[in-house]
Amino acid sequence: AAAIDTPVLELRETLMGKYGEDTKLIYELQDQGGELLALRYDLTVPFARYLAMNKITNMKRYHVAKVYRRDNPAMTRGRYREFYQCDFDIAGHFDPMIPDAECLKKVRLGGFCVNDRRILNGVFAVCGVPENKFVPACSTVDKLDKVPWDEVRSEMVGEKGLSPEAADRIGEYVQLHGGLELIERLLQDPKLSQNKLAKEGLGDMKLLFEYLTLFGITGKISFDLSLARGLDYYTGVIFEAVLLQQENEHVEEPVSVGSVAGGGRYDGLVGMFDPKGRKVPCVGVSIGIERIFSILEQRLEASEEKVRTTETQVLVASAQKKLLEERLKLISELWDAGIKAEMLYKKNPKLLNQLQYCEDTGIPLVAIVGEQELKDGVVKLRIVATREEVNVRRESLVEEIRIRTSQC
Amino acid sequence: AAAIDTPVLELRETLMGKYGEDTKLIYELQDQGGELLALRYDLTVPFARYLAMNKITNMKRYHVAKVYRRDNPAMTRGRYREFYQCDFDIAGHFDPMIPDAECLKKVRLGGFCVNDRRILNGVFAVCGVPENKFVPACSTVDKLDKVPWDEVRSEMVGEKGLSPEAADRIGEYVQLHGGLELIERLLQDPKLSQNKLAKEGLGDMKLLFEYLTLFGITGKISFDLSLARGLDYYTGVIFEAVLLQQENEHVEEPVSVGSVAGGGRYDGLVGMFDPKGRKVPCVGVSIGIERIFSILEQRLEASEEKVRTTETQVLVASAQKKLLEERLKLISELWDAGIKAEMLYKKNPKLLNQLQYCEDTGIPLVAIVGEQELKDGVVKLRIVATREEVNVRRESLVEEIRIRTSQC
Repeated sequence: AAAIDTPVLELRETLMGKYGEDTKLIYELQDQGGELLALRYDLTVPFARYLAMNKITNMKRYHVAKVYRRDNPAMTRGRYREFYQCDFDIAGHFDPMIPDAECLKKVRLGGFCVNDRRILNGVFAVCGVPENKFVPACSTVDKLDKVPWDEVRSEMVGEKGLSPEAADRIGEYVQLHGGLELIERLLQDPKLSQNKLAKEGLGDMKLLFEYLTLFGITGKISFDLSLARGLDYYTGVIFEAVLLQQENEHVEEPVSVGSVAGGGRYDGLVGMFDPKGRKVPCVGVSIGIERIFSILEQRLEASEEKVRTTETQVLVASAQKKLLEERLKLISELWDAGIKAEMLYKKNPKLLNQLQYCEDTGIPLVAIVGEQELKDGVVKLRIVATREEVNVRRESLVEEIRIRTSQC
Repeated sequence: AAAIDTPVLELRETLMGKYGEDTKLIYELQDQGGELLALRYDLTVPFARYLAMNKITNMKRYHVAKVYRRDNPAMTRGRYREFYQCDFDIAGHFDPMIPDAECLKKVRLGGFCVNDRRILNGVFAVCGVPENKFVPACSTVDKLDKVPWDEVRSEMVGEKGLSPEAADRIGEYVQLHGGLELIERLLQDPKLSQNKLAKEGLGDMKLLFEYLTLFGITGKISFDLSLARGLDYYTGVIFEAVLLQQENEHVEEPVSVGSVAGGGRYDGLVGMFDPKGRKVPCVGVSIGIERIFSILEQRLEASEEKVRTTETQVLVASAQKKLLEERLKLISELWDAGIKAEMLYKKNPKLLNQLQYCEDTGIPLVAIVGEQELKDGVVKLRIVATREEVNVRRESLVEEIRIRTSQC
């Protein structure tokens, strides 16, 4: 896949009408003359805009970058106004479900729920929901992972104005989840099998599960009819990964960080940006980096492991005073050879302070210049972990450091 | 050095009063309720804000990230509204000029001009410029790399209101450039040596050149009294790298992309963000990535070299029809082993099309599954460049691909 980068700034109008109820979370720039701009809300819409603008009809890409939400931050749940997403997308006219299966295979996270917008819309149709209420019904169904069915049903009937009978019929479908056998059963369902959209969606879902079997990952995938996803642009298969607390974790307040990755097929989005409406089918997945990090951090804190923030291989130190020049010469040689070296920025640092600095920051080696060593043409190399010290000839020092740090 | 990341969004007030005349180029966000925000203009001010907020008094960091300028873009000169900078900074109370020398050593670019704000201010003082005109005089001097002295002099006398005599005296100094011998000469200058600021600056400049000699890079450094740099926050040494067209380049329109890196010492900036005004001395350098890329691209175009945009090691292909399942199984094995593999997303692609795809995209290997090979437990591995084909046992395929692609 190619790594592409798109701007953080997009035209305001590019982002409008793509994110459903979340459009209110888009950050807009002040009108300071010139175009009306906004900060990207995700990496998907800019990618589609990029494909249309450059008339690209075939591309596999990944992109790690920041996105922006004018939201209330909640640090402990990994929810920020500015955060990183990592996206992987495949654009182009291909045989069905092969790229879709690749997206699910490539994201090596715990488990995925999958569904298809066509199946959901088919369910709404056969349950007697009028077409103009598909979208509100969809966003209500999406809440089933957080609240019980009773509450979802009340919202459907009360706020969204569905008939109680329709809501009950929907309830029978959207509480189903399973694997290939559920797909087969629904393909035989007397009502659903009569609906063209649902039938297409179920046929593709079956194909997807066949490919996932070949990929050896069906154990991690659940076909879940309550998965709906809020965004406007999905047209086919949709999926979402939820990272759960591991059972053997003894965390005082178990924190659910919710969805850590999600995506789906968006076959209509590129066409919205093409002057002639030419469509480029796409499927992609977004991973929320911070949410995963916030879990990793909690696990690290629990295990009290220490994380090094630098990759310095060696500290250039001196054993006596007045050796600043010699330290500068040596560090310059090491830098020129590509060694990651540091020194204390003092004219005459104490040896003890230099060694303590290595202990504190995790630097594994110390190259010590001293008067006697200079005369002998050697450098004393100290291995911080074992306190072992060896004299190394100056011309072999770079190689010695390389060998010793590749062992760490 | 530690890699740290700061937000793209900063409080508007954090950025105000730091960038001199360029403050007008700051992108402000719309007031949509909540804090007044702006997009960062550089990586230096956010770093200083970060140090003060987190009470950090000692840090070496690098940061590659986007910055924003509400400017007229000029693509050919590598000038954008949104572009990457790569910054390297050293913060802390240290013995003089050791970190400053490291900044210059670490940036491996063509040549650097260096100067010191204290020397410039000393020059203005001894030439009879009143202190309230130091800043406008400074920004006029900074234009000497683009326009001849006559024009700079007119601006000083006309727009900035300096006396013709003062301008002439300034002219004698700011047209000087050289090395250690110039520093020594100015240290003996009857007027300049009487000015406290200039003397301090020249003393440190001498020390800097001594360290740069130990680093073996004085040949790339020029002490240039016309270098001023526009930003408000510099307090000591300043430097700037200009990438020039190589002499042997035969480009039709030689394009100067101007400054590709710059920086200096900013000892007062952190204190501006600390409630108690505690100072943390800092020195740092910013590299403009796009400007360097735009030169590299022009050189590549001139040399007609091709750049691969993906790192795919192998294409999984099929020799006959009805082998989609076998391709999926094989690619899944390769992905699981960490091999970068691709396949065409077609049920029954033609072999010729698959080979052509490798030619077009530069994929060096093709793993071909065929009916006979499946029976024999082998995969045919084709080396695209030589058209050589070898049968490799399935269990050795991963290793074979690793060996062959490490040779490329």
